[in-house]
Order: sequence, then C-alpha cells, then structure tokens
Amino acid sequence: MTGDPDRTAEAASHDDAIAHLLAPQSVAIVGASSDPGRIGGRPVRYYRQAQFAGRLYPINPNRNEIQGYKAYPSVEDVPDRIDLAVLAIPAPQVTPVVEQCARKGARAVVVFSAGFAETTAAGAALQHELAATAAHHGVRVLGPNCLGLFNVRAGHFPTFSSFPEAGLPLPGRVGLVTQSGAYGTHVLMQARARRLGVNIWASTGNEADIDVAELVEALARDPDTDVIACYLEGVRSAAAFLRALGASHAAQKPVILMKVGRSAVGAAAAASHTASLAGSDAVFDAAIRPFGVERVDTTERLLDLAYAASRSRLPRGRRLGIVTISGGAGVLMADAAEKEGLEVPPMPAEVQQRLIAANPLGSPKNPVDITGQALNDFGLVRDHVAALLEEADYDSAVGFFTSWPASSAIGPRLQAALREGTKGRGERPMALVMLAPSPIQESYEDDGFLVFEDPSRAIAAIGGMARLAVRLAMPLHRERPELAATAQPLPGHRLSEAEAKRLLGTAGMNLLPERLVRSAAEARAAAAALGCPVAMKVASPDIAHKTEIGAVALGVTSPAAASHAFDEIMAATARGAPAASIDGVLVAPMAGDGVEIIVGARNDPVFGPVVMVGIGGIFVEVLKDVALRVGAVDRDEACRMLGELKGFALLAGARGRPRADLDAAADAIAQLSAYALANAGRFETIEVNPLLVRPAGQGAVVLDALVVPAGPPGVPADGG
Amino acid sequence: MTGDPDRTAEAASHDDAIAHLLAPQSVAIVGASSDPGRIGGRPVRYYRQAQFAGRLYPINPNRNEIQGYKAYPSVEDVPDRIDLAVLAIPAPQVTPVVEQCARKGARAVVVFSAGFAETTAAGAALQHELAATAAHHGVRVLGPNCLGLFNVRAGHFPTFSSFPEAGLPLPGRVGLVTQSGAYGTHVLMQARARRLGVNIWASTGNEADIDVAELVEALARDPDTDVIACYLEGVRSAAAFLRALGASHAAQKPVILMKVGRSAVGAAAAASHTASLAGSDAVFDAAIRPFGVERVDTTERLLDLAYAASRSRLPRGRRLGIVTISGGAGVLMADAAEKEGLEVPPMPAEVQQRLIAANPLGSPKNPVDITGQALNDFGLVRDHVAALLEEADYDSAVGFFTSWPASSAIGPRLQAALREGTKGRGERPMALVMLAPSPIQESYEDDGFLVFEDPSRAIAAIGGMARLAVRLAMPLHRERPELAATAQPLPGHRLSEAEAKRLLGTAGMNLLPERLVRSAAEARAAAAALGCPVAMKVASPDIAHKTEIGAVALGVTSPAAASHAFDEIMAATARGAPAASIDGVLVAPMAGDGVEIIVGARNDPVFGPVVMVGIGGIFVEVLKDVALRVGAVDRDEACRMLGELKGFALLAGARGRPRADLDAAADAIAQLSAYALANAGRFETIEVNPLLVRPAGQGAVVLDALVVPAGPPGVPADGG
Repeated sequence: MTGDPDRTAEAASHDDAIAHLLAPQSVAIVGASSDPGRIGGRPVRYYRQAQFAGRLYPINPNRNEIQGYKAYPSVEDVPDRIDLAVLAIPAPQVTPVVEQCARKGARAVVVFSAGFAETTAAGAALQHELAATAAHHGVRVLGPNCLGLFNVRAGHFPTFSSFPEAGLPLPGRVGLVTQSGAYGTHVLMQARARRLGVNIWASTGNEADIDVAELVEALARDPDTDVIACYLEGVRSAAAFLRALGASHAAQKPVILMKVGRSAVGAAAAASHTASLAGSDAVFDAAIRPFGVERVDTTERLLDLAYAASRSRLPRGRRLGIVTISGGAGVLMADAAEKEGLEVPPMPAEVQQRLIAANPLGSPKNPVDITGQALNDFGLVRDHVAALLEEADYDSAVGFFTSWPASSAIGPRLQAALREGTKGRGERPMALVMLAPSPIQESYEDDGFLVFEDPSRAIAAIGGMARLAVRLAMPLHRERPELAATAQPLPGHRLSEAEAKRLLGTAGMNLLPERLVRSAAEARAAAAALGCPVAMKVASPDIAHKTEIGAVALGVTSPAAASHAFDEIMAATARGAPAASIDGVLVAPMAGDGVEIIVGARNDPVFGPVVMVGIGGIFVEVLKDVALRVGAVDRDEACRMLGELKGFALLAGARGRPRADLDAAADAIAQLSAYALANAGRFETIEVNPLLVRPAGQGAVVLDALVVPAGPPGVPADGG
Repeated sequence: MTGDPDRTAEAASHDDAIAHLLAPQSVAIVGASSDPGRIGGRPVRYYRQAQFAGRLYPINPNRNEIQGYKAYPSVEDVPDRIDLAVLAIPAPQVTPVVEQCARKGARAVVVFSAGFAETTAAGAALQHELAATAAHHGVRVLGPNCLGLFNVRAGHFPTFSSFPEAGLPLPGRVGLVTQSGAYGTHVLMQARARRLGVNIWASTGNEADIDVAELVEALARDPDTDVIACYLEGVRSAAAFLRALGASHAAQKPVILMKVGRSAVGAAAAASHTASLAGSDAVFDAAIRPFGVERVDTTERLLDLAYAASRSRLPRGRRLGIVTISGGAGVLMADAAEKEGLEVPPMPAEVQQRLIAANPLGSPKNPVDITGQALNDFGLVRDHVAALLEEADYDSAVGFFTSWPASSAIGPRLQAALREGTKGRGERPMALVMLAPSPIQESYEDDGFLVFEDPSRAIAAIGGMARLAVRLAMPLHRERPELAATAQPLPGHRLSEAEAKRLLGTAGMNLLPERLVRSAAEARAAAAALGCPVAMKVASPDIAHKTEIGAVALGVTSPAAASHAFDEIMAATARGAPAASIDGVLVAPMAGDGVEIIVGARNDPVFGPVVMVGIGGIFVEVLKDVALRVGAVDRDEACRMLGELKGFALLAGARGRPRADLDAAADAIAQLSAYALANAGRFETIEVNPLLVRPAGQGAVVLDALVVPAGPPGVPADGG
C-alpha cells in the first residue's frame, strides 16, 4: 500500500519501528540468563548459534558475561544506541524498563513476560500502563505474553520458543504470523518435518500494541517473503486486517490463513482466550473474499499450500493433467481434483492416438495411466509428461510414481525422464507423489518439482494454488456502485413499509405504483386507476405478519371488490391487532410471476455494512442459503453473489421456468448495497423481502421492505 | 455369517480354499528366480527373511537351488502335496500350470502374470480360459495381474510388492485389501511411516475369481484381524460385497473403506481401469449404510482411523473432552470436533469451580486450557485429565502437549501425570497430539494412548471411531416392513395414473376418494357426492404434463362448475394432446394443506430396488436433496431418512407451519419400499409425486403416482 495517500507520517514511523523489530542492528536482552535452557537464556543461545551480525547486549546485574557476550547491569549502562530490547523480566518491572529503553533510542520491545491482561484485572491494568507508556515514548511493543519472533536471514532470534533448539530453522520464502506462540511453535515443527523453511516468524501474544495485521503488512513489504501464512484466533481491528490483506494483494503475495473459531464452541473459547471480537464467521469469509487469501482449516493444508506456493509459480488456471503408473491412483486424484474445483479435461484426441500407439496397454486420456510399462521404457514417462504439459497445455500437472524414486535401479532413470519431459513446461507447477528418503525428495525439489507423499494432499495444494491465482488476478479496487443522485438519507426513526419502500425507490430500486387509501371509496378509485387485479394490505408500522391476521387480499378483480376488501381488511385488523396504529391500506397492481429473492444489508459490529442475498422463503430460512459481501458491490459482483446460491438454478430457469432477469436483480443488489454503505451507522437492518425478479427483460420489483434503524449504542438490535 | 442357512457346502469349500490362500503349509513358486530383485525372486527372498515355517518349493527348470531352497524343474516334480502355488510366468503358460497344480492338490493359486483382461481381447480370452479351467479343478485364483498378498504372522509372502524390501512388515491387528497392488503398496508404505502394522494384505488385480468381497469376508473370520481396511475401485458383485460387510458387522469388526470414483471423471476412469460396474455413488453409500463401515476419501484418513480403531476400543458416544496447554489448539480442535459431528459439552459446574480454584489462570470449561502453568505443577495435568474422564465422563478425550514429550526435562513428568490422570478411564479412548521422536511416541502408545502429530487428524480419527461405534451397535437384521396382505403385484405393462394409485392403495398407501368420470353429467354427480371444492384432471397414460396443456382444474367450487370444468378439460386436451388416449377425467376432493414430498423406488443395476425420499419441487430437482436406502425400510428407518433431508425443517414445522404427520409419511415410505422389494425386477421406477403430508394426526395421501415397468433387458429406462 506504499503511496496510499491515507498513510500518514505516523504510519511511516510505525513501519520504521517494525523494521527495527524485524531486523535491528543492536539488541538488548533484559533478564538474560547464562542457562541456555531458560527463558532469558534461549534467545542469547540462538543469536550466538546464528552468528548474529549486529550487536547483542545481555542485561543482567549479576553477571559480567553471558554465554560469551559481555553483560551489562542495566540497559542504561550499554555504551551504544539500542534498536530493540527483549524483556524477559517479571511483569511489574516491564514498564520502567521500557522507559529506560526509550531513552537508549529503542524503537521497539519484545515482551516475553506473562502476568498481564491474560491473567487478572490487575494484570490488565499493568498492560494498559505498558501500552500507554510505550506509546508516549514512541516505542512499539510486541506482546506481552508472547514467544517473540525470529528472522533467519538476519540471524535475529528474540524468542524463547523451543523450535530453534533442534537446530537453526531452514531458510525459505515463507513468513508466518501466529497469535499463539505455543501453536506457532507446533506449526513450525510440523513445517520443518515437511521441509518448509520459514524465514520470519512472529507471535503476537496479548497484542497490547502490534497485532497480526501489522505484521502481515510488514511481510507484504518484506523482499525476502513470497508467501504469508497466518494463524489467527480473532481480529483486533477489522480495518487494519483488511488493509494488510490489501497490501499483500498489491504485492501479489498469497496469504494462507488459518482462522480458528468457526464452530460455536470454538468461537466461544476463542473469545474467552483472546480479547478480540469473535464476529460472524460467515461475515469474516465475506470480508476476506476480495483478497488473495486462501482460508484453510488444518495445519497440514496451511503448510502444504505454503510449501507449494513458495516453491512454484501459481498455475494460470484450473486445468490439471494427471499422470500415473497406477490406474487407481489416477482415479483417486481425479476425485480429489473435482472436490478441489479443478478440471481434468481429456488430452487432445490426436495426442491420445499417438500415445496409445507407443503404449497400447496405457490409458492416455487424463488421468493418464502409463502403467508398469514405464519400467520397460522410461521414454514413455518423458513422452507422456511432455504431452501433458506441452500439447495438452494443462495449467498444472501431478505425477504419481510411488516409491520408484527410492529405488537405485529405477530412480535415476525416472528422474532423467521427468527432467526431459518437463523441459518445455515453462512455469507450470508440477507435483510428484512419491515415497522416498528426504535427500531423494530434495533432489526432485531441486529440479523444480513439488513433492508430496499423499496424492490427496498434492491435489489439495494444487487446488489452493489455483484459487489463489484466480483471486490475486482479480483487481482489488473495483468500481464502486454509484449511489443514485436522488437517494434520500435514512432517518433515525422506525419506518413504515411505505416509507421504507419510498426511500429505496429514491435509491433507484423499482417499486410497484402503489397507493395508500383510507376509505372504501378511495380503494375503489385506486383499483380503477391502477387496473385490476390488485393486491391490498393494511399499512401499519406495528404489524409484521399481515397475512396471518387476514389483513391482506390478493387478486382483487374489480373496483367494487376492492371497496369490499378494504372493509374486510380493516375489520380483520381491528380484530387481529386492535392496538396497532393504522396508516390505511396499500393498493397495488398484482406483481405477476417471478422468483422471489431477499436482498438485505445489516451492520456487522466488526466489518460494518454487509450485503446479503438469498432466494426467498425456505432457501434462506431453512437452508441458510445466502451470499454475503462486506461493503458495496457492483453489478458484476452482485451477479457472482447470485451465482453462489445453491438455489441459483431457480433463477437460471429450472423446472421449465423462464430465465429470471438477473441483470435487474443484480442492479437492485448493487443499489441497495450502495445505499447501505452511504447510510452506514444509521441502520441495523435494511431488508427487501421479497424482491420479485421477473422473467428476463421484465425487471425486478420491491414487494416489501423493512428498515430497522440503528439501536442506541450498547444495545445492538437483532440484525437478522 | 457363520450359521447362515444359505451358505452352501460350496461356500464352505471356498472358505477352506481361502484359508489355504492366506495360510498354507506348502507353497510352490513357479518361475522362481535366484535374483531377489526380480518378480520371481522377491517372494522367495521374503519367505526366507520371514523364516516361513511351512515348506517352500521354488520351481525353475534351470536351477537346482534358489536362494538357499532346493528347486524343482516343475510343479509335478515336487515330492509333496502343494497347498498354494504362486505363478510368475508368462500369461500363456498360466492355465496349463494351474492344471498341474490342481493335480498336486493345490486349492489356490496367486497369479502375478500380466497380459490378461487388462490388455487385449486375446488377453481377456486367456483370462476366461484360466478362470474356467481353475473352476473346473476346484482351484481358486487370486489375480491375474496382481501383486499377491502377505500374512505377517504366518511368515507367508506370496507377493512381489516392493513393500517388504525395506524390512518385514510390522505386526498389527489390521487387515488390508486393495484392488490395486501398486496403490496398495503405497498405502502400506504410508502405514509403516505411521507405525501402523498390517498383518494380512491382499491385492486382487483382475479378479478373475477371488474378489475384494471374499477377502473382506475372510478377514471378518480371521482371529488375528480386528479392523478391516479396504481400497476399492469398483464392486464386482454387490451381493457378495454386502455379505462381506454383513460378516464384518456380525464379527463387530469395523470396516474402513476407501472407494474411489466419486467424481464423473474418476468414475469413468475407474470403469475403464477395472471391468466392474461403476453404479451410482449415492446408491453405493446407501447400500453400505446399515453396516459398520466408515467410508473415507483419503489415504491419511484410512490409515489414521485404522490405527486408532485397531489400538483402542471405540468410544461409547460422541461426547469429547479436550485438554490443552495452549488455548489456540483447543479452539482449533473444538472446530474440528463440530465438523466431525462430535460434541464438546462443558465440564460440570462444580468440577469447573474446583479446577479454577487450583489453577486460576486456566480455562476449565471444555476445551480445557491448563496453560503453561502445567510446567510449574504437573499435578494440574493429572487432575484436569482425571476430571475429564471421570467426573465429566466424556466418551473420549484428546490432549494437546505439542513437543513437551520430547523434552528430557518435561517429558517424564508429563508422562507420569498422564498415566496417573487416566488410571480410572476404563476403556475410553484418549488421543495425544505431540511432536516427538518415534520411540517416545511409542512409549505413550504402550501406555494405551493414541498418538497424532496434527490436532485435526486426531479429531478426525475420533470422529470416525464414534461413527463406527454407532453403526456397529445398530442391529443388522431389522424388522422388514410387512407387505400389506391386500397388495396386488405390478403387471408388466405401462400403467395409467389411476391404476398406479390403485395398486399403491392395495399396498396400504392412502388415496383420496377419487372418481373417474366420462361426461359432464358424471362430473357434476361426482362433485356432489365427494363434496366441493374438488380437483379435476384428465386421466390419460399418454399425458405427463397435464397442467401445461390446461387439463387440470383446482378448487372447483360447485357441481355445476365441475360440469363446466369437464368440458373445458376435454377441450384443452383435444387441443394440447390430440393423439392421446383418454380414459376420462379424475374428480377428487381438494387435498388440503400439507408438505408435498416425493417417495419413489427405482431399480439400481448393481444393488436392486432403491427407495428414495425428498421434499417436493426444488428440493429434489434443484438441490438433489434426497435420502436413499437399498432394499426395504421399516418405519424407524423411514423416519431417519426424512431426518437426513436438508429441508427436514419444513416437515418439522419451520416458518410457522404445523408439524407434519411424520409417522404417516414414514408409514407410506415403508409401504412403498416393501411393495418395491416384493415387485423387484418388474419395475424401473415407482414414484409417488407428490405424497401430501398433512399436519400431525391427519395422515399422508398419494396425490399422483407413476410406474415405469422394467424395460426389455439391455435397454435400461431412465430411472430418474
């Protein structure tokens, strides 16, 4: 987001502080220990092992030397400026030391110490004081109660995670941010077992100051990071988090996101564990949708996709070529591909003919089965793979060779054939499924292949890459839908149906030519003017379920019948809702045929206005079949929303119906979303239910509308 | 299925032959090689390494000795009876050698040789000849074109799979059957990496004789097998396969089944790869549903679940207790639990109070977070785990301890605390998520814990175990619904709507008191007799879409109107379907309110009569929201079918509707299923669409019915 005009000097200064946090020249470790196993000893040990090129100053009043470094009694005794201080001291001492660090020029501190907001009210007060003091001195804080971070290329290890104990981390092009230090360490260990190098890792702990969003944004700017992985329990600031995703998108860096708390029990546990707003998981998904983000549910998926995306270009599209030496594995991978939204189209007919001529017992269609014949002629491997990538021109490919690479007799010939066969593949990713010792797998990785042991996991990673590629290719800043010039703002009070419809009309939505009548005579006249048949219903802000009390008449066939219906509706209302305030009776032409959809907006406490669309009735109410977006959507995006609905076939003309007017429906969605965004903060819910979408070319019309104004602060209304 | 009266002497003889296949006393290896890397050399090498206690006879005309065993020029030269022969010779030689083997008493042969039905028409003829000859001599055949099998406990290795090359397999209580030998080998290698021992493995190749079903049934009888894992591309005989699942269920052995070919591309590839009928994947799922089977989509799931189910009792239910030292991992596992259908209910309040008193910074609810405090007091681990398993009485538990077990300082204390805390857990499974070297993980396994490295995989395995437990606890032989004594058989010809309804009425389904009229006067009389309003529609076997041509009148309010409607319907029919044969017009009372469902049966080419239910209209047509069962269902099972529907809430009283008469709907489903089973072979489709399910207590009534008789053989009708 460099060059973004809303980034202030303060933000630039923050970036600078984050740069000091991630790659300082001088580091003080306060509470440093000679014991390399203790919290204050581990970072010293790791810096030493990594041969940190900057200056390291252990601080300990009882030692002159710690693990080979000269030690100082206090930060103030260090004869140098300090860029970053690491605090491994009891909580009550943290804030005073931060002040000392500030005087030595420190721009950032990493606070390991626990005993802050994660404990008691007193701890929370301590954390508040820490944050305020640090902010006052312009010092940024990572933590408290965090495991710190590392930057492998910089030899920078301000962490007491046990992860580097087993050896310094592998280099790699992945950056990882985890709120939980303990789970972050677990992820790092699983990553190492998978030969995935993480260059920068940071854990954010209590997030008194620096949060996950800011670190993701820093990784988006970091030239040594190509892929950002992130483990998240809650978002502290929606705006900051979306800005970070925007920065990653702008830098064309995929973000692989594991956000836990989808389930009810999980969300409750996350809300109590972190202090962040849980928010609605569905709205979270809608909010991250425009960005180059793949959300995953398991650590394996996180790591597999980070591995694949950091070692290979993303595929251009979803077309996958599968080549195996076992028919069964091909079937398995074709199944997995469908599940991942990949396509497995057949090879061109002439290529199939050529391949079958060379290998009569094989299946050259796709999945391609070379069969064990490959053992007799490795030229078959070369030719089939080349055909897959060149002539069939698939966007990505996967090959199943089980333990062949591990065999000293077979392996080298297979590897040579694969090298030759993939010479012309350009930058298309190709994964190989194999079981072989790590050094052999690495030799294939050195050839540019992705290596997996499980075929389903290989396909899942390719699927994730293809989705990321599509999202990263979508421009981030789309045309905002224009708010109609005639649009009138929402007032702060509760609206009648007629008022709600009138305001949506000013925003550009189509209404029926409706009349409010107050007598049987007026009803007769209205029916005559509008043309029969008409629909009539009581107009009252107090009655939600008008049909149930008999206050609706449909298909009224004549002006005389309308006069009669008026009296019946008023009588029914007097019986069914004697206390209701009555504005009169609405008379409108019958709307005709079409598909009823629901279009609405509500105000999400985390992400602001959210627009929703679903097909009327059971689809929304029973199946929860809705599509959501955060903010306003244009017509194209509204069309995509409709296309996501499980019941979309109804609009597209299922069951012999005519195709509905999708353009008109999309326009209505866009108009409502623009109106909602323009009125953000003034409503809890705006809902058109139903919007009647008529057959193609005949438009879409608002039949009923409801606006719930924003409640008083602290008393959120039920926003549906 | 021991004791099943339909098992014949032939079946018993088959069992005996399979026993010889799996654990023979004397084995001949025809085409044995001195080179332990060649196809004919590998089994000799494996037998030698395994110190096979039986007699091994390598057959090779050019050698006197092979790999230390005395060799013979031909089978006939062996001075002993042969139980089993392994054939590693060119395809054309196979059948003659099988005849020789038969003369030496062999009951079974394992045929490695390729060049049979998997190749050309000539190969298929060769295979046919092999199968016929073997059957004639009473010799059972595994293969051809298979990788063979092994039985670790018996030291029996008639296989050329490369799997045992890396060392003899681990012992274990899992049996594995795979159609594909290559993929089977891959699975075995993944299993070994996961420390999962497979005692018996068999690959079935072309299945000229012995198929997967027969081997699964053999494993169900094998006393050394507790869990059966199976990789399948297609089912050769539905009846045999279901009988095998029945035997496994009767033996209370879980079957974990990976059947590939779910996707369209995958199914097509499977059909071309194997010669088996692909069939409908949804029908396959319905067919295996009554048994103790968990179908999985990935090898990891197959192995994780086989590992868990073979090392631990299955849980009694779905209630899971989660204990962690990291809040984030608890949230992650709670999410995963919901996805797996497990429950994570809170700990009893008094237990929570006691735990929070001992550990004020922890979260004792569930997921339980001990936090890093556990490091200061391992008694907390003991007490929290004991509370989970004893007081809270969860059916299963999972603990997340990341790399703690790997630390020499922490590990032993953690292990001791876990041992103490789980003393009273009875047979409840408990999984631990840890990252540690294999010997340390094994020491926890020796304590009775299941060990996983990834938390999501631990939860998935527990979810699978819970589902298996529920299914194994369900009795297999449920009451068959009784066919009504009045039921009349379906004739072989196409039926009119009225005939179809009448026959379903004889089977016990409720009909409206409908009359067929042939004049306006008769219509008037019928309306008067039935009571208005009535519904009227043309009766014709030739008109499927009566509404579209105007041949339906609903809500006819008087006998006079009925007379008029008759004329209108006849006129509309003459215009819209001039060639149709007309039986008259059906007059019936209006059916009233209710939920329209579709109940049908169709004849599946693999599994026979399949009963289907769905909610009318869009649910079935747009959302494919249907529940299926193979064979007949009783009322309870029919209720479960209704409960599986996504739109079930509509029947249960969503949107302010009254609750529908579920009992009546279930009765109708059961009656239709019994009628379909009794008429198996005589119909392609029987469909009641709609069955109107009225509010509770008011019954369910057939409004329309369609019967498509069985088509001529080889021309299957489109069975919807």
